[in-house]
Amino acid sequence: MTTQKLIDQIQKKKSFLCIGLDVDLNKIPKHLLKGDDPIFAFNKAIIDATHHLCVAYKPNTAFYEAYGIKGWQALEKTINYLNDNHPEIYTIADAKRGDIGNTSTMYAKAFFEDLGFDSVTVAPYMGKDSVEPFLAFKDKHTILLALTSNQGAFDFQTKTVDGVELYKQVLETSKSWANSENLMYVVGATKAEFLGDIRKIIPDSFLLVPGVGAQGGNLQEVCKYGMNDSVGLLINSSRGIIYASQDENFAEAAAQKAEELQLQMAAEL
Amino acid sequence: MTTQKLIDQIQKKKSFLCIGLDVDLNKIPKHLLKGDDPIFAFNKAIIDATHHLCVAYKPNTAFYEAYGIKGWQALEKTINYLNDNHPEIYTIADAKRGDIGNTSTMYAKAFFEDLGFDSVTVAPYMGKDSVEPFLAFKDKHTILLALTSNQGAFDFQTKTVDGVELYKQVLETSKSWANSENLMYVVGATKAEFLGDIRKIIPDSFLLVPGVGAQGGNLQEVCKYGMNDSVGLLINSSRGIIYASQDENFAEAAAQKAEELQLQMAAEL
Repeated sequence: MTTQKLIDQIQKKKSFLCIGLDVDLNKIPKHLLKGDDPIFAFNKAIIDATHHLCVAYKPNTAFYEAYGIKGWQALEKTINYLNDNHPEIYTIADAKRGDIGNTSTMYAKAFFEDLGFDSVTVAPYMGKDSVEPFLAFKDKHTILLALTSNQGAFDFQTKTVDGVELYKQVLETSKSWANSENLMYVVGATKAEFLGDIRKIIPDSFLLVPGVGAQGGNLQEVCKYGMNDSVGLLINSSRGIIYASQDENFAEAAAQKAEELQLQMAAEL
Repeated sequence: MTTQKLIDQIQKKKSFLCIGLDVDLNKIPKHLLKGDDPIFAFNKAIIDATHHLCVAYKPNTAFYEAYGIKGWQALEKTINYLNDNHPEIYTIADAKRGDIGNTSTMYAKAFFEDLGFDSVTVAPYMGKDSVEPFLAFKDKHTILLALTSNQGAFDFQTKTVDGVELYKQVLETSKSWANSENLMYVVGATKAEFLGDIRKIIPDSFLLVPGVGAQGGNLQEVCKYGMNDSVGLLINSSRGIIYASQDENFAEAAAQKAEELQLQMAAEL
């Protein structure tokens, strides 16, 4: 998907909400466990109930890999369901991959071609030749980890590298890579106060912002410091939406939580 | 597997060779493509021909994910074949994973419990709480990226962070994490001259060293600077061994290349 199509969706739906599909069989309603594919059944119900309120879905691959072949099949069914029924919705494989060039190309093929995602998250530690293979795919985005929402972000990301914090080095350096217009960046909502500085380095790029809700990030703060002329934000909520209820009404409860966030977003636009 | 069992194998086989099972359908012998599962057929033939010459196998997950469900099934069959027939051999899922705590636990379960690997490679960018969930598994190793074999390693890893290169910060900091005795580290053979400094920080840890062969690393140099009293090295070769021939004799050709390396290793022990 082109960036412009994503922006069009945001304006149409008055939402820049991304819903994280991080399915844990210990947390989904018990009645779904009797079925053939509880992970997909859960995702389908959530998508059916919330697709008009969000512009993106983001399955985190860890939650699918943990269930082996069955998990991988559920991931495939989920992305196919989205692409078949809601092709206007932006899809993110939250996979945090990255390897030497040749191998990164294999990952890019897996997520962009085989599964058909619009974007994939990638870790920057291995540098330019581990990220450029992803950037080479037309109308696909590579979402680079910059400043993550967890406490461990302070171990290395905020350390000063040659006078500048590492995450800023990552932002600055990545701008020089081939096809860098296909980059987006992960910046945790729990670190909204850093967004002003981040916008000085990458004023135009989209940011994927996890950490609103369960992790404690604040939507208004993120908008205040992170929004640009094209909105430039995809704010993700996972647990706060998909596990709003464990009863049979879980999908309606998820839609209600999603709508609360969508209304807050509409007020910011 | 315990570290001691790995050391015992190294001494018994006079080898610290790890063979990378990076299966690319464009590179394997054509006659295998007619079969039901060419990836597994290739791996099985390579394993049958080389298991007495190496102490570890390392499938890189990218090469399996690129083939979707079929690739994941081939990976599962490969690790099961190894665990059933050669339980003394050490297995590495070269996955370069890492996510926020809860999610890293899902990855750890996927590779350690569901698939039954002895170890998994992990990226350090997200810090302590992204790595410790892997370290919590008993008799499993977490192999942290420190200094990788690719050119992109110079983008961030060798930059100076608060007066010390980032990869050294990663090594030093990781020693303070819970269950850090379960850590090993990736150090590329193409950067053998860095190994002396690295051994000052982590004298006792095992290093997984890719980059010998196709990428240009030198075995003797790696041993000179990297070996410790328990050997402390797993030297990986992928393409140089598994693609030694594309004919029907590919497995014998792979065994010959593996034996050349094993004999060089025996001379270093």
